[in-house]
Amino acid sequence: MQIAQALEDLTQVLGERLSRSKSDLEQHGRSESYFPMTPPDAVAYPENASEVRRIVQICAQHAIPVVGWGAGTSLEGHGLAVRGGVVVDFSRMNKVLEIRPADMDVTVQPGVTREALNEELRATGLFFPVDPGANATLGGMAMTRASGTTTVRYGSMRDNVLGLHAILADGRRIHTGTRARKSAAGYDLTALFVGSEGTLGLVTELSLRLHGIPEATSAGICSFPDMGSAVAAVQETIQMGIPMARIEFACADTARAFNAYAGTDMAQAPHLMVEFHGSESSVAEDAERFAEIVADHGGSAFQWSAREEERRALWAMRHNGYYAILASRKGARAVVTDICVPISRLAQAVEETQHDIAASPISGPILGHVGDGNFHAILLIDPDRPDQLEAAKALSHRMGQRALQLGGTCTGEHGIGMGKTGLMEAEHGEAWDVMGQIKQALDPQNIMNPGKLVRGT
Amino acid sequence: MQIAQALEDLTQVLGERLSRSKSDLEQHGRSESYFPMTPPDAVAYPENASEVRRIVQICAQHAIPVVGWGAGTSLEGHGLAVRGGVVVDFSRMNKVLEIRPADMDVTVQPGVTREALNEELRATGLFFPVDPGANATLGGMAMTRASGTTTVRYGSMRDNVLGLHAILADGRRIHTGTRARKSAAGYDLTALFVGSEGTLGLVTELSLRLHGIPEATSAGICSFPDMGSAVAAVQETIQMGIPMARIEFACADTARAFNAYAGTDMAQAPHLMVEFHGSESSVAEDAERFAEIVADHGGSAFQWSAREEERRALWAMRHNGYYAILASRKGARAVVTDICVPISRLAQAVEETQHDIAASPISGPILGHVGDGNFHAILLIDPDRPDQLEAAKALSHRMGQRALQLGGTCTGEHGIGMGKTGLMEAEHGEAWDVMGQIKQALDPQNIMNPGKLVRGT
Repeated sequence: MQIAQALEDLTQVLGERLSRSKSDLEQHGRSESYFPMTPPDAVAYPENASEVRRIVQICAQHAIPVVGWGAGTSLEGHGLAVRGGVVVDFSRMNKVLEIRPADMDVTVQPGVTREALNEELRATGLFFPVDPGANATLGGMAMTRASGTTTVRYGSMRDNVLGLHAILADGRRIHTGTRARKSAAGYDLTALFVGSEGTLGLVTELSLRLHGIPEATSAGICSFPDMGSAVAAVQETIQMGIPMARIEFACADTARAFNAYAGTDMAQAPHLMVEFHGSESSVAEDAERFAEIVADHGGSAFQWSAREEERRALWAMRHNGYYAILASRKGARAVVTDICVPISRLAQAVEETQHDIAASPISGPILGHVGDGNFHAILLIDPDRPDQLEAAKALSHRMGQRALQLGGTCTGEHGIGMGKTGLMEAEHGEAWDVMGQIKQALDPQNIMNPGKLVRGT
Repeated sequence: MQIAQALEDLTQVLGERLSRSKSDLEQHGRSESYFPMTPPDAVAYPENASEVRRIVQICAQHAIPVVGWGAGTSLEGHGLAVRGGVVVDFSRMNKVLEIRPADMDVTVQPGVTREALNEELRATGLFFPVDPGANATLGGMAMTRASGTTTVRYGSMRDNVLGLHAILADGRRIHTGTRARKSAAGYDLTALFVGSEGTLGLVTELSLRLHGIPEATSAGICSFPDMGSAVAAVQETIQMGIPMARIEFACADTARAFNAYAGTDMAQAPHLMVEFHGSESSVAEDAERFAEIVADHGGSAFQWSAREEERRALWAMRHNGYYAILASRKGARAVVTDICVPISRLAQAVEETQHDIAASPISGPILGHVGDGNFHAILLIDPDRPDQLEAAKALSHRMGQRALQLGGTCTGEHGIGMGKTGLMEAEHGEAWDVMGQIKQALDPQNIMNPGKLVRGT
């Protein structure tokens, strides 16, 4: 590794857009999570794919790690240069390149955030549905296979990336996929890159599916005597084929945090928040049928509304869930967990997790995407108490093991990064080695985001 | 390659379930398409994953090709042992292993056909939606990334395989995916294997998503003055968010073939056949709204029905489209093409294809999955006229090139096999080499279905 020569060569290409300022290095050495500060050797701000290619070529020549950076909202330390090297910040590659309303697709640079994209789409009657909460970049969301509140209806990044351009570790520039809605032409490299966390290459362009803004939307909230009843109501709704656009769960502790944060008056009980998309008559019918199912399962009267402002208030509350929970304990930091199980095991997974948290020295309200079987415990720790961080990490690890025992996965949407590599062997067995073989074939020097996802990198 | 020793070793494992009978070899050397007869050296009939593993291990030891075989319905010669070796016929691995109604998923062996699965599911209120027309095996459908008439609503095999078990070229047995609805845990090996055409390993088990049989269904048919109007009506329907469960196109020549084959009375014009799934009121509303759109685009009165027998008759006609077209020319054989383009280019793609066919010595009625932008010209040839086969192959190649120029793919659902390798370089560029690197990493001896999909194998 000849870092000095590499940085000189990079400066020749990028000029002042190769930054070594302390503030820049520190800003790109921090994560949203509990990982220690890990500043890179430099931060590069490319403006186009050719520059990204030159960056990778120079780093390859000197065997220097290359780590992509979107909005820095990863919860598993994806953007941290744990072996040093260059962080490639895509904030200057933030253009929406082409919107094609007739095909309901769009081509973007990776640094566009999901909110910026939806802003640009506003006049078209279309929207991009994947919504992980944070205003992440679309490149980052693709690399972590992000999903969120609308996945039950519109799918995750896996379902909404039509194709992409990437620079590989040896500087080759490839494209994957086409603009056709489906293809049977060879290995699905788009799906291989989506979720690869920057370990196979850097994405320089994405084509995404769009969806029509529904003519009408209804949304509402209700509470249940226990988690099992809430999940049973969701299962029945899915089986009846009532198309939910969102279906979110909040535990009693989360409801309490909402009340304190937003001045609401929620019962201290498990809640479901749900939304339907369709025509005016269909969303009313969906809400009525859902209300009947809720009543059958002992839920409270289902209060719903098709009015925009009430709906916005509901989802603003949900989106602020993380901050509401964080605010419920002064000075706390959070370790956010993320397991996903078959829906028949969801109630059990939540209840066992609640018992495990109750027996620990920390607290951890729960919320999640119940239609996908995915939930998060927000484990609250005192940042000055290393024992609490250890307790949270142990709880998170046990949650992952529990998910695997129940036929699920250790991460529904946050990814592996550095935080979950300890569960990959248990989840994938020898298939983890297959991932390693693919990585080795495409990046034999291990320069693309080393230390993440793959064993022993 | 020591074929004699390999066959001796295989006989020790399989006994009479290693067949070398002439009829068996010929039956597994034929395809549904125009490829010449290519009998393998032997046909193996394993009954479980351990036997599949032993077969692959023995073949690996002697560097003998291993080729999977489902129902033999591939249109691109996927099951042909073009380098000799052993065809592994999965017909004895045809068990539905576990149905989990609460999770709406199922685990099957690869030799189960889609019709057999739906038969077993009948009492559950659930169904498996992917419907390529032929009664293919689910293993074969996974390996070619099959789709069909319902993909516009329920997705293709890409969207409906939750996970799988596979035996790799070195005998390792891996599992991919979990039963969770989504995961961000590492490379998406499930998606890598779905569509890999047996070139990376043999699948021994699949977990699949199921869907609720809708409470109500409406279906109907209408004609249009031209292809452009029909496509415009479909685009508007999609943009309005009216959820179509099927939306199929048939050209005027196909309508004529239907009339002759089934005694119907269709206008000699482009037609759309459509189906809606939902509640009784929603499917009626969907059909009414669709009828308005059809009228706005100059279509004929949209005749629809929620009655089961009328609906069945409609889709039986569509499913018999291939046979109706084949019967329209006595003694003909067919070369079936399969391109998929962005929907805004679909009318152009169909019209240019029709002109190209009209200028050729052969005929080729067109039908397709218009909601996906995917269509097939059924090119009719006299089997005793090699010049007609050459003309059909040239037309098919030009269709593929046209699809790529329009931003699409050379195959929407039939796969590459042997028939489309000539278009892979044009579609994927250097990404085709990336597929080759993955193949090389996992199968360095190139024993898994050589001669298919990957360059120079």
